[in-house]
Amino acid sequence: MGKIDFSMDYCEGAHPIVLDRLLKTNMEQTPGYGYDSYCQEAADIIKTMCGNESLAVHFLVGGTQTNLIAITAALRPHQCAIAPSSGHISTSETGAIEAAGHKIITVPEENGKITADQIRQVCDEYRNSESKVHITQPKLVFLTHATEYGTIYKRMELQAISDVCKENNLYLYIDGARLGYGLCAEDSDLDLPFIAKCCDMFYIGGTKQGLLFGEALIIKNEKISEDFRSIMKQRGGLLAKGRLLGLQFTALLENDLYFDLSRHANKMAQEIRNRLSQKGIRFFVENTTNQIFAIFPHEALEKFQQKYIFDVKNKAEGGSSIVRICTSWATVEENVQRLISCLQHEL
Amino acid sequence: MGKIDFSMDYCEGAHPIVLDRLLKTNMEQTPGYGYDSYCQEAADIIKTMCGNESLAVHFLVGGTQTNLIAITAALRPHQCAIAPSSGHISTSETGAIEAAGHKIITVPEENGKITADQIRQVCDEYRNSESKVHITQPKLVFLTHATEYGTIYKRMELQAISDVCKENNLYLYIDGARLGYGLCAEDSDLDLPFIAKCCDMFYIGGTKQGLLFGEALIIKNEKISEDFRSIMKQRGGLLAKGRLLGLQFTALLENDLYFDLSRHANKMAQEIRNRLSQKGIRFFVENTTNQIFAIFPHEALEKFQQKYIFDVKNKAEGGSSIVRICTSWATVEENVQRLISCLQHEL
Amino acid sequence: MGKIDFSMDYCEGAHPIVLDRLLKTNMEQTPGYGYDSYCQEAADIIKTMCGNESLAVHFLVGGTQTNLIAITAALRPHQCAIAPSSGHISTSETGAIEAAGHKIITVPEENGKITADQIRQVCDEYRNSESKVHITQPKLVFLTHATEYGTIYKRMELQAISDVCKENNLYLYIDGARLGYGLCAEDSDLDLPFIAKCCDMFYIGGTKQGLLFGEALIIKNEKISEDFRSIMKQRGGLLAKGRLLGLQFTALLENDLYFDLSRHANKMAQEIRNRLSQKGIRFFVENTTNQIFAIFPHEALEKFQQKYIFDVKNKAEGGSSIVRICTSWATVEENVQRLISCLQHEL
Amino acid sequence: MGKIDFSMDYCEGAHPIVLDRLLKTNMEQTPGYGYDSYCQEAADIIKTMCGNESLAVHFLVGGTQTNLIAITAALRPHQCAIAPSSGHISTSETGAIEAAGHKIITVPEENGKITADQIRQVCDEYRNSESKVHITQPKLVFLTHATEYGTIYKRMELQAISDVCKENNLYLYIDGARLGYGLCAEDSDLDLPFIAKCCDMFYIGGTKQGLLFGEALIIKNEKISEDFRSIMKQRGGLLAKGRLLGLQFTALLENDLYFDLSRHANKMAQEIRNRLSQKGIRFFVENTTNQIFAIFPHEALEKFQQKYIFDVKNKAEGGSSIVRICTSWATVEENVQRLISCLQHEL
Repeated sequence: MGKIDFSMDYCEGAHPIVLDRLLKTNMEQTPGYGYDSYCQEAADIIKTMCGNESLAVHFLVGGTQTNLIAITAALRPHQCAIAPSSGHISTSETGAIEAAGHKIITVPEENGKITADQIRQVCDEYRNSESKVHITQPKLVFLTHATEYGTIYKRMELQAISDVCKENNLYLYIDGARLGYGLCAEDSDLDLPFIAKCCDMFYIGGTKQGLLFGEALIIKNEKISEDFRSIMKQRGGLLAKGRLLGLQFTALLENDLYFDLSRHANKMAQEIRNRLSQKGIRFFVENTTNQIFAIFPHEALEKFQQKYIFDVKNKAEGGSSIVRICTSWATVEENVQRLISCLQHEL
Repeated sequence: MGKIDFSMDYCEGAHPIVLDRLLKTNMEQTPGYGYDSYCQEAADIIKTMCGNESLAVHFLVGGTQTNLIAITAALRPHQCAIAPSSGHISTSETGAIEAAGHKIITVPEENGKITADQIRQVCDEYRNSESKVHITQPKLVFLTHATEYGTIYKRMELQAISDVCKENNLYLYIDGARLGYGLCAEDSDLDLPFIAKCCDMFYIGGTKQGLLFGEALIIKNEKISEDFRSIMKQRGGLLAKGRLLGLQFTALLENDLYFDLSRHANKMAQEIRNRLSQKGIRFFVENTTNQIFAIFPHEALEKFQQKYIFDVKNKAEGGSSIVRICTSWATVEENVQRLISCLQHEL
Repeated sequence: MGKIDFSMDYCEGAHPIVLDRLLKTNMEQTPGYGYDSYCQEAADIIKTMCGNESLAVHFLVGGTQTNLIAITAALRPHQCAIAPSSGHISTSETGAIEAAGHKIITVPEENGKITADQIRQVCDEYRNSESKVHITQPKLVFLTHATEYGTIYKRMELQAISDVCKENNLYLYIDGARLGYGLCAEDSDLDLPFIAKCCDMFYIGGTKQGLLFGEALIIKNEKISEDFRSIMKQRGGLLAKGRLLGLQFTALLENDLYFDLSRHANKMAQEIRNRLSQKGIRFFVENTTNQIFAIFPHEALEKFQQKYIFDVKNKAEGGSSIVRICTSWATVEENVQRLISCLQHEL
Repeated sequence: MGKIDFSMDYCEGAHPIVLDRLLKTNMEQTPGYGYDSYCQEAADIIKTMCGNESLAVHFLVGGTQTNLIAITAALRPHQCAIAPSSGHISTSETGAIEAAGHKIITVPEENGKITADQIRQVCDEYRNSESKVHITQPKLVFLTHATEYGTIYKRMELQAISDVCKENNLYLYIDGARLGYGLCAEDSDLDLPFIAKCCDMFYIGGTKQGLLFGEALIIKNEKISEDFRSIMKQRGGLLAKGRLLGLQFTALLENDLYFDLSRHANKMAQEIRNRLSQKGIRFFVENTTNQIFAIFPHEALEKFQQKYIFDVKNKAEGGSSIVRICTSWATVEENVQRLISCLQHEL
């Protein structure tokens, strides 16, 4: 038997209900490029869930693709994005935004989050600069929710960020690769309609949340959504058999499956987290979603790595490492119990 | 019962064997981004089929994505691509290549094809130009096989093109979205090893050949393949669950399924083509692959459109239209017979 | 004594009055980047000449730079420019527009010009396309005036083009590298206020019209002019000592010098043209500005090339070549007489 | 009488000898685009000064243009530049490098400089990364000399940087907008041949060193210089009357004028610096070139600003500001004495 992989939330394929939907419709003939009824249906579900029928909804294959196309559509050449220093576009997309022509101004994160004040400060600096022409113009704020460190924004924090964006004529964009895990955190006070109100655009991630692949980008701002599909096609982001995206999202979003799966992952993480706490393990970041950032002594880590795959992020001080343990919609309760039992004995 | 769709070769999902492979492996845990054993296996199969173990193989999601990333990786800023005026990058990708910074020099096509002489002429014009600095430098030839008009290159033609590319220091790249349909045409004298010898890169299309999605890009030239995955990631073309591509291609390429499906589509097209000929219908282009370009009188067309979906390309002269009728791996024999019978009666 | 160069209109430096202005102000201290009083003054003169005080005026160094920055500022990623097949951006700028991410749709020129009907047709094709998402969106029309063939648009033609642009939501942009030569043609019925009314932006060329370098870009459309200097800086088009541009344009535009020089060049060309006609030389294109496109028998051409430099464009049929003979603000009457005398004897 | 401007080193036009050269040659006819004998002559002088006849030399108009074209020519899409956080491309070019598609990795500067160790560390991080494909590849180091803070690299420091670049397969590029001021600093132990040995490319700045405009880019690495002029043209950086650049550089580089002017500026700065020191004024950065970064109490600053223009960079702590006082080739000794006398009385 192989090692059990807790290193990421995209180790497996798709939730069986999702796969089943693909199977059942497999030989149907539909138009291409997302002009099918399944995409229409999925878009309608999302608009209803967001409480806003005038939103534009587009389905893309992956997160980097979604981020780069969304930002490409939103910015003029001299405009830049503000992002946390830990933001996915800053650290993990091989310069995709710069390759699309735009600078990213990074702001120091705390637990993966940034604040309205930090954003205001960047805008003030630009506004007060005497050489405005020589620097890029802040025009879009990029957040992730849940963040790269599994933390979440609270209602008041997001409201404040949204307000500062409106005051400063900035677009607010949320990368929701793990939006479900974020929304279903036990201490979350956010919901989809609130996010749709705060943002100019955001996406509901599917790849890490139970689909084979797929992200649903929701655009409220009509300046951005105008001709959006043309830009998707141009950047290679318009799937020929677009229905695959519509079908998967329909399956995921019906009957609360999306939230059920998110809650499951968070619960599995919490059980591991509790045991780690009991054993005196400290955390690099405290959070309540599907990612755990634990500080493991090297000796213990080596033992665990014989049976489990973790994502070892960094050496920390004093002979220990920061380890990411990730659960997901697919995490099997039995494997979690096995890990917990192992933690009990080996730590 | 709905209309039967003959308008394109990506109306359905995937061949059942392909889907079955996804189902059976669904809950396996694998590394992401194509570093899994299935992608390795698929790459190995492809290298063996091409008779060259030193090729680089990368799996991408769609054709436009593959074309734009391949060409981005190949060209320096002042270099351009030569393509037939009917080439997919010229007509159907929303300026993706230009958005990546490169001009396309189009060459008049005949039946979707261009010749070695035409390419040589473009190169000679550049070489002889007195203002070389003011024009873009031809560096890559883009072909499709089978072409957008369903025609194929013959061995001597492709050899001549490959030779003129080598003489002029041009890369040769073949878009193989329908490579199987091309290779399995009854009058084809090409095979994969020959294509691999002639080209610097080409792709084996999956989206139109039996997969849910996926294209396998084969790169022989090391200048292009160096760090290729970084460029894939940067342009949003590196699938998180990369194994989905490896798995599908493995299923498609094992046991000759890829060629069997291609032959099936071609055979279905030939049956329709034969009946059309018998009924005196002329063709806009003569070909032997899965696309038929027939010239239909408007009156007949309207009758057919009550039961069938075709891709009506253009009004032609004299009250008729150019109609594309497309078969595929998924085309059901029974539907073809029904169409043939209908042709028999209505024409 | 060297050969006399009639091959282009930028062989010499600047008109003495222009140089003198640089000399006299040389040791003055001014702010950089065009924020000096000379640029302000030049902009004011131009606005007055155009009869519109609300225009934005920006000074750039060269034509390719001006074209690429203007078009970069105007277009969203999926939008393209329509240009004559002979347009400078199509033929002579090393793919600068494509390098900025935009396709150019070329329209067949007649004597360097295109018509409102041709533009309408491109727009109609886009509008009627069933795969709009797969093609670029026409958004800007690029013209040159005088054209690359020295021809000019008439008032009614330009009005019609302007109308079709407005109807189709297209920007109209005129490259005025030789605007003066065009406006001062004896058969011209255009003037600056009319051009300013018809266009969203255009430039008054300085490099070929008496300056060391410099083009004055006039932008009427506020969507384009917003933050325009930031884009200039970003693309390397904001001259540190911007006053050099303001100073030169002030000198050129005061006291009608710009038009006087333009008329001089046209007159010199006309004298040569007349003699050529008398000697039975035919023209590749008939025009009335500073460029002559004559068809020279090879034998005669070789004789002339011993004393004069022409721009030999192409072999024409029957042992002759198309030769461009160019006058400019700097053309010395005496040299023209010498050439005319030579033509008299050698043809 | 107006205020005397010490805010920058490009307040005036050009050194009289340079202007005189333009005047004397003004009506000569030469080929365009830098194919004239003056550019050839200037290139030859530079190659000789650098002690390497096989260098490529190209003349451009301004610094941002030079940086963006040089870096565009050097990097593949996934590659990035390493620069000091204070580097001109990082802070003052409106995202020009990102607009060309490339990320800049900034490294904390000390007095405007970075070290070989810092560069090695960036390379090691990339090399050791487990997700190399998800981050950009360091490929070029960008330095300025003299730096934005007027400091200079010493021979051993630059040698160490050059070595670490070679070890890590990085290009080394020096922005020499103020190269003369740097080379002529009293504590400099660098010269042009040494710089040419250390770098893959660098430029000798003209705009801030006595020319109207112009930068001479020297490229040693043939991978970068191949077809370089095509890329210059494409990005709008090929001056039509290229001779203006050749002529100016010839005038500047003959008879040691370039170094004489540089020494003059440094001497003027030193005199001001000495007086400031005597009066107990502290410096934000200690340096020996033409820029002074002094910390001025607000009260004193306000007095000076009645007669002089300085570049006030930042509020510093305790009621004082960081002020840049800049001399140049054009600084008049008498004005310096006046300022010194003023400093004597007002501080």
